[in-house]
Amino acid sequence: MPSTVTDLAVRARAAAFDLAAAPRGAKDAALLAVADALEAAAPALVAANAADVRRAEEAGTPAATVDRLTLTPERVAAIAADTRHVASLPDPVGEVVRGSTLPNGLELRQLRVPLGVVGIVYEARPNVTVDAAALCLKSGNAVLLRGSSSAAASNAALVAVVREALGKAGLPEDAVQLVPADDRETVQQLMRARGLVDVLIPRGGASLIRTVVEGSTVPVIETGTGNCHVYVDEAADLDMASRIVVNAKAQRPSVCNAAETLLVHEAVAAEFLPRVLADLADAGVTVHGDEAVRGIGGDAVLPAGEKDWAEEYLSYDIAAAVVPSLDAAVEHIRRWSSGHTEAIVTGSQAAARRFVQRVDAAAVAVNASTRFTDGAEFGFGAEIGISTQKLHARGPMGLPELTSTKYVVTGEGQVRS
Amino acid sequence: MPSTVTDLAVRARAAAFDLAAAPRGAKDAALLAVADALEAAAPALVAANAADVRRAEEAGTPAATVDRLTLTPERVAAIAADTRHVASLPDPVGEVVRGSTLPNGLELRQLRVPLGVVGIVYEARPNVTVDAAALCLKSGNAVLLRGSSSAAASNAALVAVVREALGKAGLPEDAVQLVPADDRETVQQLMRARGLVDVLIPRGGASLIRTVVEGSTVPVIETGTGNCHVYVDEAADLDMASRIVVNAKAQRPSVCNAAETLLVHEAVAAEFLPRVLADLADAGVTVHGDEAVRGIGGDAVLPAGEKDWAEEYLSYDIAAAVVPSLDAAVEHIRRWSSGHTEAIVTGSQAAARRFVQRVDAAAVAVNASTRFTDGAEFGFGAEIGISTQKLHARGPMGLPELTSTKYVVTGEGQVRS
Repeated sequence: MPSTVTDLAVRARAAAFDLAAAPRGAKDAALLAVADALEAAAPALVAANAADVRRAEEAGTPAATVDRLTLTPERVAAIAADTRHVASLPDPVGEVVRGSTLPNGLELRQLRVPLGVVGIVYEARPNVTVDAAALCLKSGNAVLLRGSSSAAASNAALVAVVREALGKAGLPEDAVQLVPADDRETVQQLMRARGLVDVLIPRGGASLIRTVVEGSTVPVIETGTGNCHVYVDEAADLDMASRIVVNAKAQRPSVCNAAETLLVHEAVAAEFLPRVLADLADAGVTVHGDEAVRGIGGDAVLPAGEKDWAEEYLSYDIAAAVVPSLDAAVEHIRRWSSGHTEAIVTGSQAAARRFVQRVDAAAVAVNASTRFTDGAEFGFGAEIGISTQKLHARGPMGLPELTSTKYVVTGEGQVRS
Repeated sequence: MPSTVTDLAVRARAAAFDLAAAPRGAKDAALLAVADALEAAAPALVAANAADVRRAEEAGTPAATVDRLTLTPERVAAIAADTRHVASLPDPVGEVVRGSTLPNGLELRQLRVPLGVVGIVYEARPNVTVDAAALCLKSGNAVLLRGSSSAAASNAALVAVVREALGKAGLPEDAVQLVPADDRETVQQLMRARGLVDVLIPRGGASLIRTVVEGSTVPVIETGTGNCHVYVDEAADLDMASRIVVNAKAQRPSVCNAAETLLVHEAVAAEFLPRVLADLADAGVTVHGDEAVRGIGGDAVLPAGEKDWAEEYLSYDIAAAVVPSLDAAVEHIRRWSSGHTEAIVTGSQAAARRFVQRVDAAAVAVNASTRFTDGAEFGFGAEIGISTQKLHARGPMGLPELTSTKYVVTGEGQVRS
């Protein structure tokens, strides 16, 4: 299977072997050099980005998307600062995860090692290009960056700066490579580069993620789909509950850890719903409710159906239903959840315990907003994405999640009998 | 996609939710009940197995395969003992993997939780049926067992005993289910049961594993292919080296952690090769060597080519080559290794360190046989297989490797600003 991507991956693989043996000092020095180089190149980076922005505007791209695409000198400085921050984080490589001496005297150690070559497929956000490169470099991985064609000029300029700085710092330039984005086929080639690419991380919309998950022979880490629920229990502090619901929905509705459905225990529905509906309305949120919710909220509440329970609105919309019990809330969540973050508001220890135990998600929040499921909020320093699958990593993925392990068995001639 | 497997998986999923919340005491009691029931049913199990054995013999199945298929009262007792041993192992579920209190007062805990529904596709070894069921049960997972059609009667009898014992012990019988093996399509259905099956573990030959890895939309853990090397360094104790080579190859040649290729540093080839070739010949091993090896070993050494470097013989055969340096050995291993276990024999600390750092495998052995890469040898108590992939688990997989994690975030009304 010769292809553009195969060539890039073979070179990345060679670079990854060198990078795996690079000590922390060399990697951190390279990251700091990258940060300096980005700042020094800011005018050129902004100029390259302007071409992408102009094309996007001419194509009628939505303003929010154009904003995410845009680089300014301040944003380049912020990207450089993020890179310096990654340099300051602990190096996961070489950490002894477990170790023991076996009865036959063999010394067993399980060490963290880089995954090898990481592929990332993402949308038109140039900051992801550098963030992903920095995280992969710090964790000793080579990275194949497959961004969006609409950010092609920005990404080419950024990757050229990063590679040059790497080379000057004595690390292999091929550890960071841009996969051409002008052809959809390159995503397919990444998906089929089994044995050359160790993991593929799709970041972006649901359809991209589904395509990669279903078609890839390279192992995939699924990220980012969040159909998150807030369940307000009969034993909830209703002031707290309304604050959490509004925050979870409206503080930043376009992100995966925003709430999409409110479930209210019927015992507190009559008291709670009028209050939370008013607070949501004040925050500019449209509610799509079941009959019980509409019975209280009236015509301001739009009718909700299965489509609403399934939907990740990512907008100022929320679905709402009244449930007869905690177990019914759990059942609803089991049916519709994407396994990202589920929250309960309750003063009952027993209810909190049952909800935590029975809800199957990357994160379960008790008396806290769903919005906290985030690498920075969790104190991981940086994240490459939020895994909603169960294998390898679940929830916010920091540097340790970009590693595998290796057992080292040291003896003095032991053989098996 | 309605199918037999879908129906089974939906029921397994429901059982998995109950099992996830079962405390250790309930799971251990059920495992002990399963062990007792297996022993009590031994005559019936042996009788059911006899039908499979007769069919296999009539079909001209190789004796070694028939032997692995065969159940005797002693083997049933051994399976029961294994089940009791699994009951004695620590429960991975609920272990706090990490935890902290965040600056805003949120308490963060990362807990081990079951994966959910585990699918296993395996060959005609009835003991795997019970082992896999016991390991999955202990780790809180429901399991879909897709054995070989040639063990169909044995597996049906075993699973019936296990399920009845589970039910009597108050755990859901549907946590252990046999997938019909009379149709190849059921493997395909397992591979496509994304969202219902959380992980699929193929155990068996290379072609089965490749089929599952390449075609599955369910996440897969690849197991068991072992093209393992022993590198004898110039600084090796040559007595030790020969003992390790013979043990790694011949102690049990049919298993994945047996050595398949010997690499010898040219500085010790003239001294070491005559000795190790004699020792290998004494152990009944045929050597396939490169020109340098044949130059010393003569016609008793068969000529080796790329096919031999690539091959997992699983027999009393070993490939052998002379290499000019440790780095050349590493290069050979990088090209041909399946990433299972690689060994170096050396008295040099620097050589050991360089080999360990530069060889990318699930396990690297220094002055020890490759044969130690095994869950029982590593002290894990039991194993579901040996992962040769880098995501999720690498090397022998015990109970913790059958779990995922869940973040629990506990607060007192925190919202994000």
